[in-house]
Amino acid sequence: MRRPATRRQPTSEEASVDKINLSDKLSKFDEFYSPKTVTDLNDYKVAVVKAKGEFVWHKHDETDDFFLVLGGRLTIQLRDGDVHLGPGELFVVPKGVEHCPRADEAAHVLLIEPTGTPNTGDAQGAPTAWEERI
Amino acid sequence: MRRPATRRQPTSEEASVDKINLSDKLSKFDEFYSPKTVTDLNDYKVAVVKAKGEFVWHKHDETDDFFLVLGGRLTIQLRDGDVHLGPGELFVVPKGVEHCPRADEAAHVLLIEPTGTPNTGDAQGAPTAWEERI
Repeated sequence: MRRPATRRQPTSEEASVDKINLSDKLSKFDEFYSPKTVTDLNDYKVAVVKAKGEFVWHKHDETDDFFLVLGGRLTIQLRDGDVHLGPGELFVVPKGVEHCPRADEAAHVLLIEPTGTPNTGDAQGAPTAWEERI
Repeated sequence: MRRPATRRQPTSEEASVDKINLSDKLSKFDEFYSPKTVTDLNDYKVAVVKAKGEFVWHKHDETDDFFLVLGGRLTIQLRDGDVHLGPGELFVVPKGVEHCPRADEAAHVLLIEPTGTPNTGDAQGAPTAWEERI
């Protein structure tokens, strides 16, 4: 449910709806590297993504890139080495740093980025729309 | 380790240091309701906190308030009802909405807020400094 544009005090029923269970959200889709927005934090979007295989080398010149592994294992490849993440581990790729996520088995990841950030950064090809909400 | 002010490409050794294991971070302190910053995301801070008992009723007029439960159970009391969160569940309190976290048993929580946000919001009393990094 989208939060109303006017930020009135939510009722208890609405508050219950707005609670986000990340496992429930992840069960709603199967595509890999297709972030789904679950809620907003000011002008940021909070999304979940399933990763498997290698994504694409890219960088974001305007924003850091936040990854928190919820399940499985994710490798953030940097030009100068790999960062290996398991459940409960997070890594923030500094803005401007080239990186390429890779997961040998399916991994579940929480992402947080400024609204409108394309997930492919400067790379060629159509970015996946974060506009889809689940 | 603090990220250098100049955002050069991190070496693989630095990248390894910058990986954040949230359980490791939580093992480094015992105080309740004392957020410890673990990394930055642009002009936001990412922090972990241990919650037990009731915090204080407050609101943030300038920012939403992000809670992701990592372990245990946390209740976000709102004036119009409670939101009950377990591991892997998150809730974003909209800006301006009064709330009071409560945990009957110790809970571990991930917080994300704009840098400089006092954790007590508009409530009286000295806010806990998020400046402490672990």
